[in-house]
Amino acid sequence: MLKKTVVCLLAGLALTVNASAQDVLEKRVRTLFQPIPDEAPALSNNPATPEKIELGKMLYFEPRLSASQLISCNTCHNVGLGGVDLQETSVGHGWQAGPRNAPTVFNSVFNIAQFWDGRAQDLAEQAKGPVQASVEMNNTPERVVETLKSLPAYVELFEKSFPGDKNPVSFDNMARAIEVFEATLITPNAPFDRYLKGDSDALNATQIEGLRLFVDKGCASCHHGVNMGGTSYFPFGVVEAPSPEVRPVEDVGRFEVTNTAADKYVFKSPSLRNIAITPPYFHSGKVWSLNDAVKIMGSAQLGISLTDAEADKITTFMHTLTGDQPQILHPILPPNTDRTPRPLLTATAE
Amino acid sequence: MLKKTVVCLLAGLALTVNASAQDVLEKRVRTLFQPIPDEAPALSNNPATPEKIELGKMLYFEPRLSASQLISCNTCHNVGLGGVDLQETSVGHGWQAGPRNAPTVFNSVFNIAQFWDGRAQDLAEQAKGPVQASVEMNNTPERVVETLKSLPAYVELFEKSFPGDKNPVSFDNMARAIEVFEATLITPNAPFDRYLKGDSDALNATQIEGLRLFVDKGCASCHHGVNMGGTSYFPFGVVEAPSPEVRPVEDVGRFEVTNTAADKYVFKSPSLRNIAITPPYFHSGKVWSLNDAVKIMGSAQLGISLTDAEADKITTFMHTLTGDQPQILHPILPPNTDRTPRPLLTATAE
Repeated sequence: MLKKTVVCLLAGLALTVNASAQDVLEKRVRTLFQPIPDEAPALSNNPATPEKIELGKMLYFEPRLSASQLISCNTCHNVGLGGVDLQETSVGHGWQAGPRNAPTVFNSVFNIAQFWDGRAQDLAEQAKGPVQASVEMNNTPERVVETLKSLPAYVELFEKSFPGDKNPVSFDNMARAIEVFEATLITPNAPFDRYLKGDSDALNATQIEGLRLFVDKGCASCHHGVNMGGTSYFPFGVVEAPSPEVRPVEDVGRFEVTNTAADKYVFKSPSLRNIAITPPYFHSGKVWSLNDAVKIMGSAQLGISLTDAEADKITTFMHTLTGDQPQILHPILPPNTDRTPRPLLTATAE
Repeated sequence: MLKKTVVCLLAGLALTVNASAQDVLEKRVRTLFQPIPDEAPALSNNPATPEKIELGKMLYFEPRLSASQLISCNTCHNVGLGGVDLQETSVGHGWQAGPRNAPTVFNSVFNIAQFWDGRAQDLAEQAKGPVQASVEMNNTPERVVETLKSLPAYVELFEKSFPGDKNPVSFDNMARAIEVFEATLITPNAPFDRYLKGDSDALNATQIEGLRLFVDKGCASCHHGVNMGGTSYFPFGVVEAPSPEVRPVEDVGRFEVTNTAADKYVFKSPSLRNIAITPPYFHSGKVWSLNDAVKIMGSAQLGISLTDAEADKITTFMHTLTGDQPQILHPILPPNTDRTPRPLLTATAE
């Protein structure tokens, strides 16, 4: 009888300790992370209207923004594939491989800046990059504008989207429209979001163990906030340089933007939102297993050797970061006219 | 007074003659052409279910059907661009140009057979071609099945779509699912469809003039039925061989299918549905102006030299063949697993 009472007491104590440890974790977690909002955030310098979002969606799916007229934003940032292309590095004009892995467009509006090295301050600035990059869409602003002006439905939508603008059909406005559409591409309601909002049952015991490890081991130092990353810049290899396959020697990251020695191999911490559905990993795209990526992060960034069991649990937690994927009605694009430039497959867009 | 009466009588007579000529045309037109139905046709050998259509849609947008994992059916048959790619000939694996212009997928279910040379008897047989063609998706049936089997959401959908099938995830069933989705890609309600259904005001006077010319000049000999084409095979150059640029000497058309001398340069008459939004024209894709294409048809097929005014009117009529474009919710595709084959960009799929 006494034995039974002691066992019961001990069990009750364990439950209390667990519950209180749980409370501590939840409290800590809520200061580190915020849920993805249910509604797209407003952009202070680029107000959204239904027309501008629709125009942006059309442009996002518009292969005629590329010289070849074969490649659209959606080619490398596929809305059906977590906003990525599942390639090591993206493939563009002439089947050329680009230098870095395509980051997801989903929730990218929450990042401090765009591209792996943060060289674009916002999504509008970002959108102008791939259109002109010779290994991506290989086009020129002039040819893009000529193309858009040849399509009356676009001219009308640009006029409606940028009222009062004397020159509504411009390369800059193309980028602004794409930005407001991209800002709608958010993925709320992941299990972890529900957990953050107070639903303790949204994660199971293993997932909570993984979350605890994620916080305790220090992952959250770089991966915090709404996007669990995308908040700042960090050296890839804080403690130990990753293998040259994973971190190619020639790609010095943010150093190319700032020309500052301290920025060698520095990159923006990527968002971990939807990370389980967006392989391969790192700017090189050389790591296909999320488990392997977690272990590399442990050794390179934290100087720790995660056990298989630990990496498994962290990975299991990361699967709770997959949110509701955007539902996108495929746009109907305007038909060519006799004035529409023809595809350039071999030549450059000059 | 008498003068006025005569004028009135004559005007009345002219109206009667016009009305009666109109009636004759309408009657003739209704025997030659049928409207696109509002509902997708049922396939007798491949019954549609909501699950099979959804699976087919996912596969249609699935770049992982290609070796590179970059090219989907939608790449060359873009549902936002009239079901085509606006290229002379499609561009596939390794940026290779294919041999022929991509026909529209829209309303293709109404064609007697598929491909320019009719070498596939239906859309299921067609779907297996590009997946394996080295200049298109460059994949193998084995690798496609391996890929699909690595993605649990697909396995489940194949099981639901092909109940009772002992081996539901197969290359053939992939093609069957794509077929039932493609059969839904029809474009009813074009102005000409409304005209065919009895709304005489659906076409204006110039469009009716164009229709009359289309019938009187003999265009309807090859372009009739629901699809205004796609009903049979005809030599390209019945009367006069087109220039070798428009009809390249090396592409002998249906001869390659039948090995019959009479089938040299014979092709399936393409559908004229949505023709105004699907340039460039002919199997070579060398003609970008619909007006030019109409004139070439006049001389090559009918031995007549259409005047500019006549070609203009016929073209104006052809713009009434653009129907309601399908509204497609972009599918969310299943995430990779560790068993999913990786993209092959350079190697063949062997």
